[in-house]
Order: sequence, then structure tokens, then C-alpha cells
Amino acid sequence: MPSEKNLDDLFLHTLKDMYFAEKQILKALPKMEKATATDELKKAFAHHRQQTETQIDRLDRVFEIIGARAQGVTCEAIKGIIEEGEDVMGKFEDSTALDAALVAAAQAVEHYEISRYGTLRTWAEQLGLEDAAKLLDQNLAEERETDKLLSKMAKASVNQRAAA
Amino acid sequence: MPSEKNLDDLFLHTLKDMYFAEKQILKALPKMEKATATDELKKAFAHHRQQTETQIDRLDRVFEIIGARAQGVTCEAIKGIIEEGEDVMGKFEDSTALDAALVAAAQAVEHYEISRYGTLRTWAEQLGLEDAAKLLDQNLAEERETDKLLSKMAKASVNQRAAA
Repeated sequence: MPSEKNLDDLFLHTLKDMYFAEKQILKALPKMEKATATDELKKAFAHHRQQTETQIDRLDRVFEIIGARAQGVTCEAIKGIIEEGEDVMGKFEDSTALDAALVAAAQAVEHYEISRYGTLRTWAEQLGLEDAAKLLDQNLAEERETDKLLSKMAKASVNQRAAA
Repeated sequence: MPSEKNLDDLFLHTLKDMYFAEKQILKALPKMEKATATDELKKAFAHHRQQTETQIDRLDRVFEIIGARAQGVTCEAIKGIIEEGEDVMGKFEDSTALDAALVAAAQAVEHYEISRYGTLRTWAEQLGLEDAAKLLDQNLAEERETDKLLSKMAKASVNQRAAA
């Protein structure tokens, strides 16, 4: 007999996954901010921390829209991505390549979020949740913007310093 | 005293990370192919499995270019992403939302790869490894193409079935 679960359930599950993920990212960003000695990168991580707080507020509003309690479920993906980032930060501490490692780790996080917000936004549209789709689209746009900014910083200065 | 590690070391470390990741993906794809009852999705996963084999060959060639032995290092990120995908597959087994869950899981994998190949390609360019950059760019282009194809399938049919 087919299970009665449908896209509503999958949407809620994935929303909880991202709620957990954003809170993990909120904890990881200050460590990255502290790890770099470069002002430009410190500012980028600090700015993204503020953005992440706003993004969590938007997820709270999506939970409200669907009448569910805002809560996370363990997201093994973000745990693995952050663990790998911390491992590389440790391995390249005090090296000229540390900033390049930090930017790469941050971009892996951004791409996970881009994937999930793209999926959640499209599911919200399919479910006729227009207001939720708009909120998720705002988060998606910010993650894409952050990813582009990081690519730009990497090419403009970070990678040259790392190769020195 | 600053560590002597530089971008060459970071490039090699991240190349090994992706070598491990691709081999994990090669193992995960047949499970996804088996899990779906939908021909279109089965074909997409089978096709991507073949692509993944070619991508691993290209990574072998990049190892050759830099004169390093082709070997993986444990990639916690892909392990987490795949673990999460298997968990959701289990939760939504036999439900109308299974295909939507499979597509979302595959897109999370694709985005991890897009992030890493984008980074590795840019680092190869910075290091003057033009032939390596071209090979990595081919992998990047295929991952982007697969991600787009999955988005298209989701919007065209998978999500409607999931919402039914």
C-alpha cells in the first residue's frame, strides 16, 4: 500500500532541515570570521552572519504560513560540509592558503543552500504557497549573491595570495 | 612561524576530496536508479552514472598532470549529503513524493560538485595548470547540465505527481 506522505510532508521535512542548517551556519560563521586575518573576508563573513539571521526569520514566517511549529531536524549534509570546512581550516591554519580554504568552504555551504532554497521555492509554488515561495526566493537570491561575491574575492586577491 | 603550505597543497587536497566524492556518488547512483519507478528518472540516473565514470577518468588525468598519485581523502561533506539523501529516500519510500525527494537529493549532490569544480578550476588557472583547468571545467559543465536537467524534470512532471 502506498504511503500517504506527499509533497506537503516533503516540503515541511526539508524546511526543518534548512532551519537546522541555517542555525549551524550561524554558529560556524563567527569561527570563520575569527580565522581570517584579512579585513575584506572578515567583513564578508560578518555581513553574511547578519543575512543568515534575517533568513532564519523568513523561515519562521514560512512555518507560520503553513501552520507548523518552527523546528529543525538534524541535517547530516550541513554537518558534513561544516565538519569538512573546519578540518581544512585546521590543516591550512597559518598558511598563505588559509583564506582560499575559507572561501572554498563558504562556497560549499552557499551551494548547499542554493540547492535547497531552489527546491523549496519550486515546491512552494507547486503547492500554491505564493507568499512562502517569495520568502524562499529572497533567501535563494541572497545565497547566490554571496556565492558570487566570494568568487569575485577569490579571483581578485585571495587566490593570488594563496599561490604566493 | 607561518606554515609552508600553499595553494598547490590545497589544490591537491581538494582534488583528493573530489576523487573520494565521485567514487561515493558512483555507488549511490545505482541505488537511486533502483529506488524510482519512473523511466525518465531511471534513465537520468543511469546516464549520470556513465558521466561520473568519465569524470573520474578526468580526475585521474589531473593527478597525472601535477605528478601526484590518484587517491581519495575522506570527504565528510559528500558522506553527509548522501546519508541525508538515503534517509529521505527511506522516509518517503512508496509515497507519491519519492521522486521529488530523489531529485532534491541529486541536486544537493550536483551543487556540492558545482561548488568544488568551480573552485578547483579557478585554482588550476591561478596555478598555471591550463590543461587541468580544462578537464575540471568539463566536469563542471556536466554537473551544471545535470542540475538543469533535474530542475526541468521536477517542474515538468515530478512535482505535480508528488503533490497529487
